[in-house]
Amino acid sequence: MHVLVTGAAGMIGRKLIQRIADEPQLFGHPVTRLTEHDIVRPETPETANFAVETVGGDLAEPAIASKTLADRPDLIFHLAAVVSGEAEADFEKGYAANLDGTRNLLEAVRAAGDRYQPRFVFSSSIAVFGAPLPDRIPDDFFCTPLTSYGTQKAVGELLLSDYTRRGILDGIGIRLPTICVRPGAPNKAATGFFSNIIREPLAGKEAVLPVDESVRHWFASPRSAVGFLVHAATLDTASVGPRRNLNMPGVSATVAEQIEALRAVAGDRVVELIRRERDPQIERLVGGWARDFAPERALELGFRADRSFEEIVRVHVEDEHGGEVGSR
Amino acid sequence: MHVLVTGAAGMIGRKLIQRIADEPQLFGHPVTRLTEHDIVRPETPETANFAVETVGGDLAEPAIASKTLADRPDLIFHLAAVVSGEAEADFEKGYAANLDGTRNLLEAVRAAGDRYQPRFVFSSSIAVFGAPLPDRIPDDFFCTPLTSYGTQKAVGELLLSDYTRRGILDGIGIRLPTICVRPGAPNKAATGFFSNIIREPLAGKEAVLPVDESVRHWFASPRSAVGFLVHAATLDTASVGPRRNLNMPGVSATVAEQIEALRAVAGDRVVELIRRERDPQIERLVGGWARDFAPERALELGFRADRSFEEIVRVHVEDEHGGEVGSR
Repeated sequence: MHVLVTGAAGMIGRKLIQRIADEPQLFGHPVTRLTEHDIVRPETPETANFAVETVGGDLAEPAIASKTLADRPDLIFHLAAVVSGEAEADFEKGYAANLDGTRNLLEAVRAAGDRYQPRFVFSSSIAVFGAPLPDRIPDDFFCTPLTSYGTQKAVGELLLSDYTRRGILDGIGIRLPTICVRPGAPNKAATGFFSNIIREPLAGKEAVLPVDESVRHWFASPRSAVGFLVHAATLDTASVGPRRNLNMPGVSATVAEQIEALRAVAGDRVVELIRRERDPQIERLVGGWARDFAPERALELGFRADRSFEEIVRVHVEDEHGGEVGSR
Repeated sequence: MHVLVTGAAGMIGRKLIQRIADEPQLFGHPVTRLTEHDIVRPETPETANFAVETVGGDLAEPAIASKTLADRPDLIFHLAAVVSGEAEADFEKGYAANLDGTRNLLEAVRAAGDRYQPRFVFSSSIAVFGAPLPDRIPDDFFCTPLTSYGTQKAVGELLLSDYTRRGILDGIGIRLPTICVRPGAPNKAATGFFSNIIREPLAGKEAVLPVDESVRHWFASPRSAVGFLVHAATLDTASVGPRRNLNMPGVSATVAEQIEALRAVAGDRVVELIRRERDPQIERLVGGWARDFAPERALELGFRADRSFEEIVRVHVEDEHGGEVGSR
């Protein structure tokens, strides 16, 4: 089985590829070949027990999209995207990467021939929704994004459904919750603090909490996100029907509940590293974000999320700290 | 005031332009100039009391889109589209006209400069919805189109909202009901019979009814459709907020109610010209179409539809038969 991953150098891409390297039977058939794409040529995993090739370049160029599809991979994970903040700051770059890039990849599948109909897993986002939002968002709630990133993801979803309906590919779009705890350095995404207040204290460092503890949001661990991708790749799509874009399950938690989960895992001294410093701009943004979902279809289809925010913290400790909380 | 109409040679385009010619004060400020675009250069109305210029060509070519915007019209009606059946039969033509054409026009507005922010009225369609549908579709129901045409319209809507949010233009998307009674020759659109069974008998000709009389659908007259466009052009958009695509009001009627309206206007002998001949393929398609809407936002914003199907029949008799029913 030949697998393509676009955006392979990103956080989720790297974790997905590591999981494939660890479990080559993950998709039922053994993975014999992996094509990794990213805007800069990604590094090859050291542990892979199958052929790995890399493609570097911008999917906004049709020739790059065609190149990734040259040998007709059986399974495509399309993760490549310019992130929310950057797509908002640079209108043209966001549309090129997120709309043209996705369309070029879909068109490359179409050009690859009649008897080719790969599974195509598209990582979408809860950014397709925009305020005002109900307390729990139902599966049939409409997409009215309030960012260019959310707009571009919603367009990708519509194309994915139509290309699926046309028999060009077998698509599944998964709307990922905010990924938490995001490993690595603090980033400047407005959602970053949700991860910072867990990750930094666990590493013995101070973190700033810019909003009230009553703020509620929708989370999944990186491990769950990879699990969603794997499940979307192996799902029997006959049971999905024509509506191919799914709200993923997750954990709805307030900041207070995040903090209590951190305390349960790592103790009071770690929690004391959270410094409260309100940021009115972030508070205003957060007011427009999804707080909770009723992801009934995804649950029926067998997608599974973390069971609690405490589990999300424990996943981070296992995956990024080797299971040890140093400063407990 | 300078007005641009794309798709000016289409049925709605021609009726809109005639209305502008009849009432040049329609938009508050006098229309002094009109740019008409269509794929083939449209004919100029004879009665116009203002400068009219025409642009022929395909908006899928960025140069044609730029040409229509060259003199920065104050008000844009974007009606140009490849229709549903054709977009389904010719994948590439539909995407070129309906997706690339719309995006090129939006991009031409963006390229036209910083201090330019025209009102941009986009004719969308209830084809953005796909079965299974609730009996009455609420304003916040999601878009899961089951045609490439519906997909392309839904993408256009998302772009319209984002370009509006970005301050590039001041967009309003209106989701038109099925237009009935459509004048002219019977066409091969699957929805065509809803018009045929009224128009043909009124002209003394037989028409085929391919479905059961219990079939319910959602209608507006051509005159109402033009009214929606005019209202969208003059509406105070400050009260609309970021959700710029609106389900238009209409008349929900069964085929039986259509026939009784025809009888009330034109009598039994006209109704006898309807021949019942079931078409399983059309019956299957009709099963997936919208039956009724609760278009609360559009009504609050002042959009007004026909009051009954009988009024829709009377509008047709007034506008296409000079008010006279010959064979009563």
